Amino acid sequence: MPSETVLYELTDHGVAILTLNNPERRNALSSETLAALERLLAQLANDSDVRVVVIRSHGPVFSSGHDLNELVNGDAEDYATVFAACTRVMEAIRLLPKPVIAQVQGLATAAGCQLVATCDIAVAADTAAFATPGVQIGLFCTTPGVAVARSVMPKKAMEMLLTGRAISAQEALEFGLISRIAPPGDLEEEVMTLAMQISSTSAHTLALGKAAFYQQIEMDRPAAYQFAGQVMVDNLLADDAKEGISAFLEKRPPVWTT
Amino acid sequence: MPSETVLYELTDHGVAILTLNNPERRNALSSETLAALERLLAQLANDSDVRVVVIRSHGPVFSSGHDLNELVNGDAEDYATVFAACTRVMEAIRLLPKPVIAQVQGLATAAGCQLVATCDIAVAADTAAFATPGVQIGLFCTTPGVAVARSVMPKKAMEMLLTGRAISAQEALEFGLISRIAPPGDLEEEVMTLAMQISSTSAHTLALGKAAFYQQIEMDRPAAYQFAGQVMVDNLLADDAKEGISAFLEKRPPVWTT
Amino acid sequence: MPSETVLYELTDHGVAILTLNNPERRNALSSETLAALERLLAQLANDSDVRVVVIRSHGPVFSSGHDLNELVNGDAEDYATVFAACTRVMEAIRLLPKPVIAQVQGLATAAGCQLVATCDIAVAADTAAFATPGVQIGLFCTTPGVAVARSVMPKKAMEMLLTGRAISAQEALEFGLISRIAPPGDLEEEVMTLAMQISSTSAHTLALGKAAFYQQIEMDRPAAYQFAGQVMVDNLLADDAKEGISAFLEKRPPVWTT
Repeated sequence: MPSETVLYELTDHGVAILTLNNPERRNALSSETLAALERLLAQLANDSDVRVVVIRSHGPVFSSGHDLNELVNGDAEDYATVFAACTRVMEAIRLLPKPVIAQVQGLATAAGCQLVATCDIAVAADTAAFATPGVQIGLFCTTPGVAVARSVMPKKAMEMLLTGRAISAQEALEFGLISRIAPPGDLEEEVMTLAMQISSTSAHTLALGKAAFYQQIEMDRPAAYQFAGQVMVDNLLADDAKEGISAFLEKRPPVWTT
Repeated sequence: MPSETVLYELTDHGVAILTLNNPERRNALSSETLAALERLLAQLANDSDVRVVVIRSHGPVFSSGHDLNELVNGDAEDYATVFAACTRVMEAIRLLPKPVIAQVQGLATAAGCQLVATCDIAVAADTAAFATPGVQIGLFCTTPGVAVARSVMPKKAMEMLLTGRAISAQEALEFGLISRIAPPGDLEEEVMTLAMQISSTSAHTLALGKAAFYQQIEMDRPAAYQFAGQVMVDNLLADDAKEGISAFLEKRPPVWTT
Repeated sequence: MPSETVLYELTDHGVAILTLNNPERRNALSSETLAALERLLAQLANDSDVRVVVIRSHGPVFSSGHDLNELVNGDAEDYATVFAACTRVMEAIRLLPKPVIAQVQGLATAAGCQLVATCDIAVAADTAAFATPGVQIGLFCTTPGVAVARSVMPKKAMEMLLTGRAISAQEALEFGLISRIAPPGDLEEEVMTLAMQISSTSAHTLALGKAAFYQQIEMDRPAAYQFAGQVMVDNLLADDAKEGISAFLEKRPPVWTT
């Protein structure tokens, strides 16, 4: 079942590019688009040729969030289905054993802003903007708030959520919602350079490190240290760490097995 | 039982204004003032004419925190009574089903800084300053630290708490302690514009969204998503979301029922 | 058992200075160095002449983290021993009943960056830099990530961890990883002024306040308030708070008993 709303390509360097391709609908995260993302992310998770993932979109809007046509005239079960699908995509990104970079060329609102907040790294054009405007249509951005509140300090999140105000890329950078900004003309190159830098490191190390990071931040500090210490030991016993440390000590480039 | 230390007025737009009015005592949060705030907040919670709350103060100091005269020559029970009263006010703000904006015209110290950190949004004059100086009088600002540590990163909080240094409004904005700054002459207008913008949205949506935000940030991420998804469904089934989304799709202004 | 890799001195003002003194090995946190730090921190904890601790180092590198020679050719038990020793030092700093200031003159990487993140306050030369570069040698900086993720927002931490990029002192300040920056020539004076300011306050108050801060940030907000309120009562019943508040009300300098 091919989807035209999400395009997929894989570069020579193992960079998988998912492109939201429904600019007429402002790249809304419709059920069709969410299903396509879920299916593609599951596929990427198991594809050893894929080392890092970029999520970007076509058109002036990165993503406007849920398709509002799916949020009227339904019943509780219908709506629960929509939010469950969205959460599965967000969690698939978070749990994917490869880094995911959001490349944000334009406005990201509501669940579109949630998508940016959920990616491991986000690079935005300095002309991009970010908002959680649901309050203005009577639908508070509560699920986007789960991701936003875990990316920026509460006062910043609360101002966004209570007013719906769009913040600039510069503000988003200062708040912690995104990782870097670039001139629009340099955005793609900046993202690809970053993606290739990451793709040149050990896939096993990235998978183990990403998973451990998000697990330990949910723990209290002593538990986090106990867990993280065991992860370090496991990491050291893997071939790529042996190779990487040996190469470093021998002042030669490493040759990864993953 | 009227109190002269906290004034109350309600604007035509549903903006409730609480004004700390004891500038001679640097707007200390005395037991009398805390009791007045607690009583007024309980009243506002149940007043459907009130859509948003502003806390501000008269005089050069926003609030100097606890009245130190109440923190000498007492016993454990006396002191516990004071801190319980203060916590009840802070929690009443946090749990109030309406947004609360701090309008900070001057110095906010100790529990006064805690009050700013506790409000959902804080707008400060660019001449305002913020401190948790208890360490300098042998009384570490531990309760203010509960709110400050949930507003700014730990290194920022710890420097404030261990040194008692007053930070500028600009620093407070960068740290995340406050939401916006304005020239002193524009502060009131900035706050009222913001308050009226928020008061023009659905009261039900604001109540549901504010409560859900603070509940989900205490959960681990998967639990937060499960909870938030259910909140979104409940929100969608309410009249104001139906009206808001329909109005948006029909390109007309919404008419809220709450 | 004296160690030459960590020097110790105590100033007249109760400022204990621990100096990493192995610049040839980039002040690596070898097992020998970790053992010396653990032993010295245990000694400082119980020395009532010590009011505040500074951790600094000699040479161009603050600390490069673990000694990689200890992380090759070992087995799981060997490696677990290394990370357990490192965690004990980090936790000893966190649990030390005296404030700890990192004075960072140069590059701090991996567990060296973790050390900076762990101190209560960190002051860096504006020429210093910070990185968690383990990913580049196949060993993800998972344990440093425990401290870094509790100092900066997740997108900032993740970019550091996934790319290994060194961030400048200015970025580290903005992210929240450090507390202040200073020109290299002013760094020591800035730190000593800060240390003496802190050492002039009550040791009992500092101990109680530091411990309570890190305990309450691990609790949910209502539990944190209940705990913090009790800490305030205990603080008020101690001699130094009685003296400090009385002195303040009587407009005279306090005379601490601790």
